[in-house]
Amino acid sequence: MLGGGRCLGLAALLAALFLVADAGVTSRYRRKLEATADMPLDADVFRVPPGYNAPQQVHITLGDQDGTAMIVSWVTPNELGNSTVMYGVAPDRLELRAEGVHTRYDYFNYTSGFIHHCFLKNLKHGARYYYAMGFGHTVRTFWFTTPPKPGPDVPYKFGLIGDLGQTFDSNITLSHYEQNGGDAVLYVGDLSYADNHPLHDNNRWDTWGRFAERSAAYQPWIWTAGNHELDFAPELGETTPFKPFTHRYPTPHRAAGSTEPFWYSVRLGSAHVVVLASYSAYGKYTPQWAWLQAELKRVDRQVTPWLVVLMHSPWYNSNGYHYMEGETMRVQFERWLVDARADLVLAGHVHAYERSHRVSNVAYDIVNGRSTPVRDAAAPVYVTIGDGGNIEGLADNFTQPQPSYSAFREASFGHATLDIRNRTHAYYAWHRNQDGAKVVADGVWLTNRYWLPTQDDDTN
Amino acid sequence: MLGGGRCLGLAALLAALFLVADAGVTSRYRRKLEATADMPLDADVFRVPPGYNAPQQVHITLGDQDGTAMIVSWVTPNELGNSTVMYGVAPDRLELRAEGVHTRYDYFNYTSGFIHHCFLKNLKHGARYYYAMGFGHTVRTFWFTTPPKPGPDVPYKFGLIGDLGQTFDSNITLSHYEQNGGDAVLYVGDLSYADNHPLHDNNRWDTWGRFAERSAAYQPWIWTAGNHELDFAPELGETTPFKPFTHRYPTPHRAAGSTEPFWYSVRLGSAHVVVLASYSAYGKYTPQWAWLQAELKRVDRQVTPWLVVLMHSPWYNSNGYHYMEGETMRVQFERWLVDARADLVLAGHVHAYERSHRVSNVAYDIVNGRSTPVRDAAAPVYVTIGDGGNIEGLADNFTQPQPSYSAFREASFGHATLDIRNRTHAYYAWHRNQDGAKVVADGVWLTNRYWLPTQDDDTN
Repeated sequence: MLGGGRCLGLAALLAALFLVADAGVTSRYRRKLEATADMPLDADVFRVPPGYNAPQQVHITLGDQDGTAMIVSWVTPNELGNSTVMYGVAPDRLELRAEGVHTRYDYFNYTSGFIHHCFLKNLKHGARYYYAMGFGHTVRTFWFTTPPKPGPDVPYKFGLIGDLGQTFDSNITLSHYEQNGGDAVLYVGDLSYADNHPLHDNNRWDTWGRFAERSAAYQPWIWTAGNHELDFAPELGETTPFKPFTHRYPTPHRAAGSTEPFWYSVRLGSAHVVVLASYSAYGKYTPQWAWLQAELKRVDRQVTPWLVVLMHSPWYNSNGYHYMEGETMRVQFERWLVDARADLVLAGHVHAYERSHRVSNVAYDIVNGRSTPVRDAAAPVYVTIGDGGNIEGLADNFTQPQPSYSAFREASFGHATLDIRNRTHAYYAWHRNQDGAKVVADGVWLTNRYWLPTQDDDTN
Repeated sequence: MLGGGRCLGLAALLAALFLVADAGVTSRYRRKLEATADMPLDADVFRVPPGYNAPQQVHITLGDQDGTAMIVSWVTPNELGNSTVMYGVAPDRLELRAEGVHTRYDYFNYTSGFIHHCFLKNLKHGARYYYAMGFGHTVRTFWFTTPPKPGPDVPYKFGLIGDLGQTFDSNITLSHYEQNGGDAVLYVGDLSYADNHPLHDNNRWDTWGRFAERSAAYQPWIWTAGNHELDFAPELGETTPFKPFTHRYPTPHRAAGSTEPFWYSVRLGSAHVVVLASYSAYGKYTPQWAWLQAELKRVDRQVTPWLVVLMHSPWYNSNGYHYMEGETMRVQFERWLVDARADLVLAGHVHAYERSHRVSNVAYDIVNGRSTPVRDAAAPVYVTIGDGGNIEGLADNFTQPQPSYSAFREASFGHATLDIRNRTHAYYAWHRNQDGAKVVADGVWLTNRYWLPTQDDDTN
């Protein structure tokens, strides 16, 4: 056990709150269930930056698999301006220049601003860069730190956020994450929930971009496509799935050998992060299937010991909401992830929090009846972290009794962090929004499936 | 039992050949297993029609859901020519004119000919039409009969063919089907197997088009996309799935409210035929999922009593080849088809023949362990008819023992017919290529799930 002092205290504290069952914990914690609503359009978090045609909705994501490239994206609302980024190692020494591209799109009665994407490459590892855009009109300056060079014992801390939306709860989630200070965000899908507004009001994509900027402009967010990114609306004549999302949120899929932006991988510190697409094809022979098969062979646990997989729709969920929706993908890919000794599978979609034991359900052959999830030391831990706090509210409808695969579940908003310490240990923690930001409501020391394949995790 | 005289005789004859188990029949019939090869490029069935720029690869498919439109497609090899079709009720009275469109595509080092698609509409039901194209160069004339107006007791006979390819066996399959005389073909995917040739040699798409013309120019073939239509080859820079297929084989998907050509429906006589896409996305919320949900509500069994579903990858297969590949789609959609009282589900993919009992496997809820297929009078019969005879040879590796869901299976090439007689009865027959074309190797009187929902089928 590493550094568990704080955790042990919490465990004692939380024990009093929990209904402890053989199979797992269904937390008794209940927030006051209340209507949740998107923050009003004039909320401060949505403010348009001052200045004519000022860049807004600035966000960054990794540009390659080595951590030496970054994609910088933003929107200019009034006119095209340019797609230039100036950057450098000090705010007064932006001596490097990159030229980006721009795009825009129509969605029913909405026309987007000018969406810019600029690729910064040949960056140094683990270095602070300042960057600015908006030249000719209003210049805005930000900064980021590139990830360290991948290596087996490189510490790195992720924020784990899903289904964030743009409610008052969303704002608490993001603020708590900021206080917990991760280096990058693994975002498991469902960003703006614009599609819950009439005509999929794409202005809500803009407000979300402005809301998330305070984090996403300063550290890479790794994007996963959720169902709320589909924006598939034949009744509006909008039949190209993911149209707003793909215009706004590029991913480094080509660097990962992928042919579509919805499935890809990145390497950050000691983690190899694979992003899968719940709403694309994954049947045998399809592009995603072919890519994942090849990708899992490319993972080098000697360099990146931690194999983390992101998707939107969870495979192990014991909430009545979206129950069994992940089965169709699970039966296709679960065996591969178990064989690959994936450490952690993150999903969103269900607006509650849940963590599984290490389980698998891969023995089924149609005629043998062996279709029940079983404890499996080779299998990943599954975490559903779709509790970012969006307009649809909490999923407070867990199945009873708690199934044996479920270790901890609670219908509260929150976020999690994954603090990788070295090749063998990482501290995973879930933080509910009703506690102080740093309070750990569910914490586990995860042991690496490659380097410590048989050692149990420790929830103390 | 209707008209079973021929069948009873056959049943007696075949009984001597079969290994009859409690659970089903694994036919002992064995053809000499031999290497199978594509017919040589100079084979007569691939002959280029004489005359400069003569239209070739002529094929038709339904253009709407009512049977009053037809899409006529062909290729001109030398120059564009035009996309005009002249048509009428007699070969010397082609008084109607339709203007089509053309396209072409590149695939690695191959450039297609000029591919024409012409939409003929406002046709009369159940009428013979003659049609010609190639004006200005070499004119060729064909004919088709439009399907009768949909109605509950309208007889209609389908050919059921899958995985045809272009081997000597393929040629036998097609000839036998022609002798059995269906009105339209339900084609369950995998057409040319061009992708089995170096660089996905697209000339093999052309030869296949010429090979199939002798049937597909004279009656509508209803297309399903198989894995050999993917032609996904990143190593060749070809990353658009289904590129040759979509350029060559249009479907009436828009008429069916679908947004992609891979899933759609048509109505033919008393049958409502739903085509699903094994290699597109089908997860909840995806376009195919949304379409199928709405589509099943549109089926009117009072008008079209027979609900037939096509896909490429089978859900019930007991062959070692492609075993369980259909699971990912089955767990998503099986419940819907059972609830909709689908009569018959056709698939290909496995290069053998198999027919299931009426079974379902929809009770599973993760924790109850109820994952075994069970007899279910409400469920469809599943037929795997991927035995058209292609370059990959037979799948002669059935699982042992024969599972209880499997009624009849045999690793022989062949085709089937579905002869709908009225709202309650249809005669289904499988014909192996080593017999005379009209010999029934497996025959069943199917009873309609809407009009006779509890009556057993009769295999005598």
